[in-house]
Amino acid sequence: MNALRVVVWGENVHEQKSDQVRSVYPQGMHNSIAEALRAEPAIAPGTATLQEADHVLPESRLSETDVLVWWGHLAHNQVSDQVVDRVQKRVLEGMGLVVLHSGHYSKIFKRLLGTSCSLTWREAGEKERIWVCNPGHPIAQGLSAYFEIPHEEMYGEPFGIPSPDEIVFLSWFQGGEAFRSGCCWKRGNGKIFYFRPGHETFPTYHQAEVQTVIRNAVRWAAPEGTRWVDSIPNVRVSPEGIRQD
Amino acid sequence: MNALRVVVWGENVHEQKSDQVRSVYPQGMHNSIAEALRAEPAIAPGTATLQEADHVLPESRLSETDVLVWWGHLAHNQVSDQVVDRVQKRVLEGMGLVVLHSGHYSKIFKRLLGTSCSLTWREAGEKERIWVCNPGHPIAQGLSAYFEIPHEEMYGEPFGIPSPDEIVFLSWFQGGEAFRSGCCWKRGNGKIFYFRPGHETFPTYHQAEVQTVIRNAVRWAAPEGTRWVDSIPNVRVSPEGIRQD
Amino acid sequence: MNALRVVVWGENVHEQKSDQVRSVYPQGMHNSIAEALRAEPAIAPGTATLQEADHVLPESRLSETDVLVWWGHLAHNQVSDQVVDRVQKRVLEGMGLVVLHSGHYSKIFKRLLGTSCSLTWREAGEKERIWVCNPGHPIAQGLSAYFEIPHEEMYGEPFGIPSPDEIVFLSWFQGGEAFRSGCCWKRGNGKIFYFRPGHETFPTYHQAEVQTVIRNAVRWAAPEGTRWVDSIPNVRVSPEGIRQD
Amino acid sequence: MNALRVVVWGENVHEQKSDQVRSVYPQGMHNSIAEALRAEPAIAPGTATLQEADHVLPESRLSETDVLVWWGHLAHNQVSDQVVDRVQKRVLEGMGLVVLHSGHYSKIFKRLLGTSCSLTWREAGEKERIWVCNPGHPIAQGLSAYFEIPHEEMYGEPFGIPSPDEIVFLSWFQGGEAFRSGCCWKRGNGKIFYFRPGHETFPTYHQAEVQTVIRNAVRWAAPEGTRWVDSIPNVRVSPEGIRQD
Repeated sequence: MNALRVVVWGENVHEQKSDQVRSVYPQGMHNSIAEALRAEPAIAPGTATLQEADHVLPESRLSETDVLVWWGHLAHNQVSDQVVDRVQKRVLEGMGLVVLHSGHYSKIFKRLLGTSCSLTWREAGEKERIWVCNPGHPIAQGLSAYFEIPHEEMYGEPFGIPSPDEIVFLSWFQGGEAFRSGCCWKRGNGKIFYFRPGHETFPTYHQAEVQTVIRNAVRWAAPEGTRWVDSIPNVRVSPEGIRQD
Repeated sequence: MNALRVVVWGENVHEQKSDQVRSVYPQGMHNSIAEALRAEPAIAPGTATLQEADHVLPESRLSETDVLVWWGHLAHNQVSDQVVDRVQKRVLEGMGLVVLHSGHYSKIFKRLLGTSCSLTWREAGEKERIWVCNPGHPIAQGLSAYFEIPHEEMYGEPFGIPSPDEIVFLSWFQGGEAFRSGCCWKRGNGKIFYFRPGHETFPTYHQAEVQTVIRNAVRWAAPEGTRWVDSIPNVRVSPEGIRQD
Repeated sequence: MNALRVVVWGENVHEQKSDQVRSVYPQGMHNSIAEALRAEPAIAPGTATLQEADHVLPESRLSETDVLVWWGHLAHNQVSDQVVDRVQKRVLEGMGLVVLHSGHYSKIFKRLLGTSCSLTWREAGEKERIWVCNPGHPIAQGLSAYFEIPHEEMYGEPFGIPSPDEIVFLSWFQGGEAFRSGCCWKRGNGKIFYFRPGHETFPTYHQAEVQTVIRNAVRWAAPEGTRWVDSIPNVRVSPEGIRQD
Repeated sequence: MNALRVVVWGENVHEQKSDQVRSVYPQGMHNSIAEALRAEPAIAPGTATLQEADHVLPESRLSETDVLVWWGHLAHNQVSDQVVDRVQKRVLEGMGLVVLHSGHYSKIFKRLLGTSCSLTWREAGEKERIWVCNPGHPIAQGLSAYFEIPHEEMYGEPFGIPSPDEIVFLSWFQGGEAFRSGCCWKRGNGKIFYFRPGHETFPTYHQAEVQTVIRNAVRWAAPEGTRWVDSIPNVRVSPEGIRQD
């Protein structure tokens, strides 16, 4: 089996602006996430950022991508609509999409889900405990009943999403909130997974359990069937011999 | 109980171009559909068309609309994005949306579902038989096990939609195809129903069973709870006393 | 509109055995819940208990019941299979079912969902905070963003249920767990709602917000369409003239 | 990768009673289905029948089974409840289940879905055309837009099932009916697929496309994650230090 071809999108804006973020992710968040994926020999990750031409997500590259991982926050609106169109098309054809943290407000996530994707939030560096709702689920492999992230931003309900096909994780926050933190959907032939943690000022993506989840999610989201390319054919002659003239 | 406030959107383009369509729907398709709704005293229908300023769908009118019925075909791209934004927002707040026939390719339907909404088709005036999948469903009230439309356009699978929450109707076509013809979704607080029949050159919307379905669908799609207006609040002080400074 | 005909099932066993439970619910839990429903003029509640003959749930009574509310714990296995068969049949026909707290392990809940319905638990009288996931949902009407129950048993994930159609509430527990506390399903024409709180030693069902949820849930679960009685007809002559001899 | 361990259950009753069935399936239907699976080197099929002791489905064998394929019709009630309990438990743990044709009325299918699983039917040997609703789905691999079965029993709507997670096939019948013929659900960690065709008097299971679907379904239903064994633990000491005494 060939390695899964993964692209990690990082908007790479906080890293340019903030010493604090740079100190946590000196190579940029996208490179830290890609590195965590590289620990798995069966995954071959690359990266893409906002600053590169056409976001280095041309149709040809997407066409050869099995799973796209998406982290963005400040610059959702700077992602070109053309790239969003392409990514949507590829997800419907079967490419997996793993959306991280503030990516809940990305154009592509809202495009595919059709809802507000709003939530409540607080940046207080509080403790988050992530519970596994289904210990047998592929995305929960290698985890215990729960794991903790010592300092994170809080995301709270109501989370403006369509009902997930499956919920893999719930979060408990020190401040008193609870949240649907790991959610699965299928759109067309593409599997979509949303995973909550990952505020830019905390070393969340350096944490082993978080890396395990992202690796699991990438494997889970990999295409299963064949590519279904969108079309709207006019079937002029029917199986039963009815004809359109 | 006050009457349900319904707006029937008709793009009203075929009616301007085609003698045949005009002969079937002399007042325009939107007016025929509205009239069918008016047969029910508890429904107060109005109309809106592409040609009117701002499509006569300003925020103030949508704000007082319980259910929007949508028929469009040739001019999906002429519907202003601003109106689509408004309609999406209102559906998420709780307004019902009933999408008819070629409305499967409308901007608003694709926006809310996030998928291609493609299908196969044939205009051969063949017989369609619509089967009830759940005789107890509110949208199927007053129908028998099936009803027939003598002449219709065919729509066939694959239909590029997210899995419906519920399927109320399946169609059987004389030419040999089958189709998911009555599909329910919820997005935010809005209920969405897609109903397949209604090609512009056939008197489908004059048929009693079709009118029954649309009336039922409007009642089913009416708002149930309260309006949830989108926001993304920063909860700086938590219930457990954690604070964001 | 006639009042909703509701039956509150209480197994009524703890009340016989425990002074503590009797001090909290002197008339029995079922009567306290029924009384909370009676506060709404549009709801006409009765009760049924394990000790009564045929659990006073004969087919004739179920046939005239719109919504059944179910609390049980110690004596799930003493509920007769015949009654469970009847209740299942009526739910599929359209009767609503509201399952409370330890009712997660009742025969009827497991029968309708088909899964283990297991969870983790702790009786430590800790604080529970219940968050609303969809403020516009009919079951959340009249509530704020969250409400608290000062002392409750904890229920934790994994909760062995099929993916809910909709999640209305999440719980946060003082001890550190989170839980899917308000879950909706539809089976046949019956709506099912599971609501977590209600340990027998705490005055949970005397709390205003809890009563509001149960009243809302009863209204939400009321039958919408017509009764669909199960059958498996042999259609010997087809609409297209194919015949079985 | 080890071969998938599959057991094909056949009740093997028609074969004892009917010359016609024996002439179509001289080795029994279960052996024909198993042989079709054997064509795929990655699948290692065995069989089990009603007549064998404990239906040769002891816990030890189920424990080492990845996917169970189920055909039954006349003798659903003779399947022991103990075996049904075991199979349900294993499905929830992650074993796949592929239910064929009249298996819609088996104890295990009704147990896992919780609904009536009723449908309408006609034995007239009419033509069935099976349409693919999602050409990219793993279960549809290797198929064209549709395939035909020259002579089959008809199954029609209403089909008394919970809304499928995904519908892969719709059937069109010569007699005029349509049906949801390929339906996916997940219960616990087990994937369930229902596939409509396969009346005992027709050579349906000798047809290449039908064999392709069953092989695809077996691969799709294979366990993905780890086994989750049911339990309901009392967590006496909480992560936050709350204790049950």
